[in-house]
Amino acid sequence: MLIVISGFSGAGKGTLIRRLMAEHGEDYALSVSATTRAPRPGEVDGKDYFFLDKARFQEMIHEDRLLEYARYVDNYYGTPRDYVEEQMRAGKDVILEIEIQGALRIKGQYPEAVLIFVTPPSAEELRSRLVNRGTETDEVIRKRMNRAADEAVGVEAYDYILINEDVERSTELLHKVIQIQHMRVSQKLPFIYEINKELRTLE
Amino acid sequence: MLIVISGFSGAGKGTLIRRLMAEHGEDYALSVSATTRAPRPGEVDGKDYFFLDKARFQEMIHEDRLLEYARYVDNYYGTPRDYVEEQMRAGKDVILEIEIQGALRIKGQYPEAVLIFVTPPSAEELRSRLVNRGTETDEVIRKRMNRAADEAVGVEAYDYILINEDVERSTELLHKVIQIQHMRVSQKLPFIYEINKELRTLE
Repeated sequence: MLIVISGFSGAGKGTLIRRLMAEHGEDYALSVSATTRAPRPGEVDGKDYFFLDKARFQEMIHEDRLLEYARYVDNYYGTPRDYVEEQMRAGKDVILEIEIQGALRIKGQYPEAVLIFVTPPSAEELRSRLVNRGTETDEVIRKRMNRAADEAVGVEAYDYILINEDVERSTELLHKVIQIQHMRVSQKLPFIYEINKELRTLE
Repeated sequence: MLIVISGFSGAGKGTLIRRLMAEHGEDYALSVSATTRAPRPGEVDGKDYFFLDKARFQEMIHEDRLLEYARYVDNYYGTPRDYVEEQMRAGKDVILEIEIQGALRIKGQYPEAVLIFVTPPSAEELRSRLVNRGTETDEVIRKRMNRAADEAVGVEAYDYILINEDVERSTELLHKVIQIQHMRVSQKLPFIYEINKELRTLE
């Protein structure tokens, strides 16, 4: 199953996903995005991102080897298809952290994908997470808040909203939401059909 | 929220619901069905069923005071509307134990209702639960198995299938499935809209 996690910047998605992998890593595979932007200090190729040059990225687009991609300012970001499909075949739930527009493109290809949007408990809380460095001008803060609001455009098409008040509790909720998906009728119908066939033929 | 629980006879629905109410009763209200059949020894009016005579039942039908009803052989069974709507207004999740056809009528009126189908882990297991009294003829067993298979007709429209291997584990799964529904986007969109409004107006 594909699990897409999006959310406001500053909602704590990254921390949640790291904890989910630390605590329930045996159940999940974490998709690594590809990008053409330069690595930041400490970022590791193949772990934080696959760092590609533009020519290689465009080649992947043309070979249909990205589940989705987008261009921001001058850089490309995308989700390599091979890893995701490999892990799904191996029976893992694959976690993707991407923004809403990319998530909706993935839902188009995998209607069974589960979309989860993470939000802080209030706008005040989000504001304090976005500006806690304390050095920003009002203008910068204003822009950042508006950008955050834009990040929720399209959220109506999501399946779940996770209000992240407490990291520990939210990690467990996230794990539960994903586990419960395995009980969805679409996942279990073959089981019911098999029981029914047996019921009609058992002696 | 309305939570409808159906399943094969012998799947253990009754036990599951009793345990759910015993362990998490503060979160839930259990709907009591109305019926025109006679009480069996030990059954309590208003707890196991509301026992009504036919005239009174038909009056409730005509006054639209039943969410759904059905007639089996010579008896009516139905779900009184008042209690369910009262408890939902009080913020409780209301649990209904009814068969699939009634469940689908309820889903028609409450599209947000969550439908859960309970099944034993195998047809063999279901067979042994249906015949463990050991006194039935093959003909009776055959009929019972076919009736069980009929009980799954329409299950494709359900939301979740709960494979009941272990009562304790299944009770917790049932509780989790219901709790997770409160994270559905349809339940939380007003929250996101409020945050977004604040993000655009906060100074």
